[in-house]
Amino acid sequence: MTNSVTVLGLGAMGTALARAFLAAGHPTTVWNRTPGRSPELDELGVRRATTVGDAVTSSRLVVVCLLDDDSVRTTLEPIASELAGRTLVNLTNGTPLQARRTADWAAQQGAEYLDGGIMAVPAMIGGPDGFVLYSGSPVAFERYEGDLAALARPQYVGGDAGLAALNDLALLSAMYGMFAGAVHALALTSTEKIPPTKFTNELLVPWLTAMLCSLPAMADELENGAEPGSAGSNLAMQAAGFGNLIDASTDQGVDPALLLPVRALLDRAVAEGHGDRDIAAAIPLLRKG
Amino acid sequence: MTNSVTVLGLGAMGTALARAFLAAGHPTTVWNRTPGRSPELDELGVRRATTVGDAVTSSRLVVVCLLDDDSVRTTLEPIASELAGRTLVNLTNGTPLQARRTADWAAQQGAEYLDGGIMAVPAMIGGPDGFVLYSGSPVAFERYEGDLAALARPQYVGGDAGLAALNDLALLSAMYGMFAGAVHALALTSTEKIPPTKFTNELLVPWLTAMLCSLPAMADELENGAEPGSAGSNLAMQAAGFGNLIDASTDQGVDPALLLPVRALLDRAVAEGHGDRDIAAAIPLLRKG
Ligand SMILES: NC(=O)c1ccc[n+]([C@@H]2O[C@H](COP(=O)([O-])OP(=O)(O)OC[C@H]3O[C@@H](n4cnc5c(N)ncnc54)[C@H](OP(=O)(O)O)[C@@H]3O)[C@@H](O)[C@H]2O)c1
Ligand SMILES: NC(=O)c1ccc[n+]([C@@H]2O[C@H](COP(=O)([O-])OP(=O)(O)OC[C@H]3O[C@@H](n4cnc5c(N)ncnc54)[C@H](OP(=O)(O)O)[C@@H]3O)[C@@H](O)[C@H]2O)c1
Repeated sequence: MTNSVTVLGLGAMGTALARAFLAAGHPTTVWNRTPGRSPELDELGVRRATTVGDAVTSSRLVVVCLLDDDSVRTTLEPIASELAGRTLVNLTNGTPLQARRTADWAAQQGAEYLDGGIMAVPAMIGGPDGFVLYSGSPVAFERYEGDLAALARPQYVGGDAGLAALNDLALLSAMYGMFAGAVHALALTSTEKIPPTKFTNELLVPWLTAMLCSLPAMADELENGAEPGSAGSNLAMQAAGFGNLIDASTDQGVDPALLLPVRALLDRAVAEGHGDRDIAAAIPLLRKG
Repeated sequence: MTNSVTVLGLGAMGTALARAFLAAGHPTTVWNRTPGRSPELDELGVRRATTVGDAVTSSRLVVVCLLDDDSVRTTLEPIASELAGRTLVNLTNGTPLQARRTADWAAQQGAEYLDGGIMAVPAMIGGPDGFVLYSGSPVAFERYEGDLAALARPQYVGGDAGLAALNDLALLSAMYGMFAGAVHALALTSTEKIPPTKFTNELLVPWLTAMLCSLPAMADELENGAEPGSAGSNLAMQAAGFGNLIDASTDQGVDPALLLPVRALLDRAVAEGHGDRDIAAAIPLLRKG
């Protein structure tokens, strides 16, 4: 449970990961492209490696959290031969295809590979909220699950290395949808000098919390089909009301750009005969072919 | 507390409103353009009016919930002279400008006017969740607040009749953002046969619940400015990762249309020098001039 661990990358997230490993008692070696980042880790007893090779050979468990897939490849390719017999856990955000390619590459080097998707912001690392999705080597997950639990609740989603990224990106798209909606809402209310914190605490958060409760019904309708006549908020009514969102935004001088593709999707669902259905009817329309 | 009430409109929402008034013991008269809608109300003792004029003259409190502003005008204009001395509560979704125009028109008829925004789906009416925003005549709100509480918690947001609509549309835009994100997420996961209900219950709802907690910080940053260097999820990193969402969607055959304006906004925020800031920095960019 107190295996040594190496963390490559000391951005906001890598720093939080290293801090959580240190707090859980793991001897922790770090490397970052720009040296000297996150001096606060020194007091916690971190070991700083000056080269990637030195960092990687310090631990059997190597966690990488860099900006993107390109930076991971640039960083790891020169030290590929050092990876044999180690476990590489890649917590850099990426696509399923990137994850599968890195998994193949790691296998060629003789390393076990786990791809991960961090469902947390840095402040949540080491705390009870948030979780990390993992996919790839089941052996590696079994061996290191206890160590990885120092970061956030580990959740294994399958042997196909691409599955953590797929679930991660699906969750991120949902988050960006919610954030985009909140950004638009705050832009709109700020035109009438409604205080942002008052609006958010008293109206926005309670409302979105209540509306979150309708997502399981949306998923159930996608999975099991709709009961005829069951729509509590039919798409025809929603499409009719959507014009008000656009008009009011324009009236108030707020760019409706974030809302336009939602309107187009609702209109298309109505045009294709789903006007008496709930919003779940729009989901298959996004899939091609 | 058991004033008579008239409900104009028996769509999904009007029906729920009438049922809640009946359940709270209010003598309730209803009218709907197409007669005979919602036969289940008859057992609850509803009185059906055959003309709008008959419906309106049955109660001092007249609640209207039709498809849109046009249907409200078409319905009320022929019986305008019957409105004097009554209170008109318009729960039809509309814009601030529409609300102000209807308020002026109602005043000309000698009626008190409240504009309302229902923050609930029909199934939530008469229950503890959800709320209804009201703006307009403070006298009318004070007189009828107790009666209106039968529908959902009444929340008064100001004397300017347009304010309920403004807050309502801001909340709806946030809801549509969240729904659009969830629609995209479910389209994406369905490409790998991940069961929608499992994904939604185990990952999507817990994740969005956790991410909801970051909205107060977003509002605080908008209201009070950012602390330099405080960004836990900087926009440069987010913009770099956003390409993965688009690429993975395209790889999986899912139309990224709902995400594209979010990407454009993040890219613009970075281009305008906010790469080291959190997403709150994007809010003012939506406002023109
Ligand atoms: N922050 C979050 O809320 C969050 C949440 C979930 C997932 N993530 C993911 O975690 C990863 C890191 O995010 P972050 O917030 O830590 O980003 P960040 O604060 O912007 O840090 C980026 C890190 O990547 C390094 N880097 C960039 N380009 C590099 C290259 N070509 N070669 C080597 N190193 C390079 C940087 O090193 P220098 O110091 O030398 O520039 C720095 O350590 C991203 O994939 C992100 O999507 C972040
Ligand atoms: N359902 C929700 O989740 C929800 C939530 C919040 C707010 N709202 C708002 O509540 C209002 C009603 O929604 P709903 O769900 O009840 O819609 P709905 O089920 O589609 O019902 C529409 C109602 O409007 C009537 N109508 C349509 N055009 C008319 C016209 N030209 N003249 C007179 N009556 C007309 C319909 O009468 P017929 O029966 O004759 O067609 C029906 O009573 C909308 O403004 C909506 O935005 C709905």
